[in-house]
Amino acid sequence: MPASAASPLPRVRDLSALRAAVSGFRHKGLRIGFVPTMGALHEGHLALVRHAKTLSDVVVVSVFVNPKQFAPHEDFDRYPRTEDKDAQLLESVGANLLYLPRVDLMYPSVFASSVHVEGPARELEGTFRPQFFDGVATVVMKLFNQVQPDVAIFGEKDYQQLQVVKTFVRDLDLPVQVVGMPTVREADGLALSSRNAYLSADERQKAARLIVELNTVAKAVRSGGQREKALSAAKANLLAAGFGPVDYVELRDADTLAMADAQTQNLRLLAAAWLGKTRLIDNIAV
Amino acid sequence: MPASAASPLPRVRDLSALRAAVSGFRHKGLRIGFVPTMGALHEGHLALVRHAKTLSDVVVVSVFVNPKQFAPHEDFDRYPRTEDKDAQLLESVGANLLYLPRVDLMYPSVFASSVHVEGPARELEGTFRPQFFDGVATVVMKLFNQVQPDVAIFGEKDYQQLQVVKTFVRDLDLPVQVVGMPTVREADGLALSSRNAYLSADERQKAARLIVELNTVAKAVRSGGQREKALSAAKANLLAAGFGPVDYVELRDADTLAMADAQTQNLRLLAAAWLGKTRLIDNIAV
Repeated sequence: MPASAASPLPRVRDLSALRAAVSGFRHKGLRIGFVPTMGALHEGHLALVRHAKTLSDVVVVSVFVNPKQFAPHEDFDRYPRTEDKDAQLLESVGANLLYLPRVDLMYPSVFASSVHVEGPARELEGTFRPQFFDGVATVVMKLFNQVQPDVAIFGEKDYQQLQVVKTFVRDLDLPVQVVGMPTVREADGLALSSRNAYLSADERQKAARLIVELNTVAKAVRSGGQREKALSAAKANLLAAGFGPVDYVELRDADTLAMADAQTQNLRLLAAAWLGKTRLIDNIAV
Repeated sequence: MPASAASPLPRVRDLSALRAAVSGFRHKGLRIGFVPTMGALHEGHLALVRHAKTLSDVVVVSVFVNPKQFAPHEDFDRYPRTEDKDAQLLESVGANLLYLPRVDLMYPSVFASSVHVEGPARELEGTFRPQFFDGVATVVMKLFNQVQPDVAIFGEKDYQQLQVVKTFVRDLDLPVQVVGMPTVREADGLALSSRNAYLSADERQKAARLIVELNTVAKAVRSGGQREKALSAAKANLLAAGFGPVDYVELRDADTLAMADAQTQNLRLLAAAWLGKTRLIDNIAV
């Protein structure tokens, strides 16, 4: 596990080096926490690592921009890659191992398998990014089998992704505990996201309007207001504020992500909208 | 782990009992072998268990007639179930634990995930049983995650299934070694199969013709004969002998199961044909 001059955090780049390191942890009887990321780390990711430290003895973080969860027209090529900065940040919060698998080792030219999830994966992001959750489920399955963690931490920022991962872990009996963590936000409420780096100064000013509208809808729903009216108003307000198109603003069952009705106990409000060339997503409990 | 009066082999029927038993093996540092079956055990299965004993310290055998790998018109309901006899046979060859999961625990009413394999799963059985390999891959993934074996043994009788399992284990990085075992045959060459029990006495007499024809084709190919002519003759001879329809008799690349051509180094000859209401499959190396 050679350490970079810039950071003493050990980095491994292939499966045999990862397995050797993890096997060392295992033989010492250590409980292994895991935080899978696509890098370009921010305070939201660091909160996941800090929480993982409280749930385990050692924390493995992966950084892998997964080509299978990007459609050809999406931002795979321009997605930010900041390895040395990521390593320094991870070192500062006490991560124990950084796993940076090579794309050609993750997906050799002969590759024929995938994990498919229905249920919570079908709509919302599943409608607008049809291959997205198969790509997510397949890479998370691979990473779980590679790292074999006791516990894995995901941010609620990608709430639907969290539910999809929980679903296949439950259905396919993976021996790992999946834990979600609340979204970390800027002072104005904007959810932290690596993609916020795409926003111009003007767009960045406008971006916080997304959570403002979600909070307004949630307040209306809690006080018994008309749900459809509140959702329509939020979409109209986002368009008027410079967002567009608004892919969805929807009220869902928080566990299954099925359409919510008057009987649904546990509600989640989820939204996706474009601001210039950047697609923002956010969600809150109601 | 209550033992039946008929057999001292411990039987478990739910995941927590299984995990408790396997965890006991693990804590003793024992290497775990696994033989997944659909029960109705015969000498072919017992050969798998005997081989598993040579590769591991303890052998777990599952018996589960998996509804997800049967189409509605197929033989799920009449598939033979012989639990006590299976337990006695497994005891006689030294199996250490029998896992008999309940269908409603394997597939609760809310179940949304599957494992999908392209490549070796696409044709042959994949053509004639379109949902079959997704059902196989999903249940084998579940069983592997439940048992967490070091090594798992499959019969070459279901050669395409063996390649499908090897494929998703490789692609999705499952930490298990998959081993194939040669097909066990009756004195007249008929491959042992739980479905042979469906054959009438007359059909049983005719059934060995399948391997006779496969051997004839293999001999012709080895001696440089015309492949298409040999394959056509085999199909015609099977139809003349009372088989019908003949789903396929095909020469394939033994690793990828892609169509073989003159350059293919490693050949496998595979066939599926109906005899009355029973569908027989078989395959041999060439």
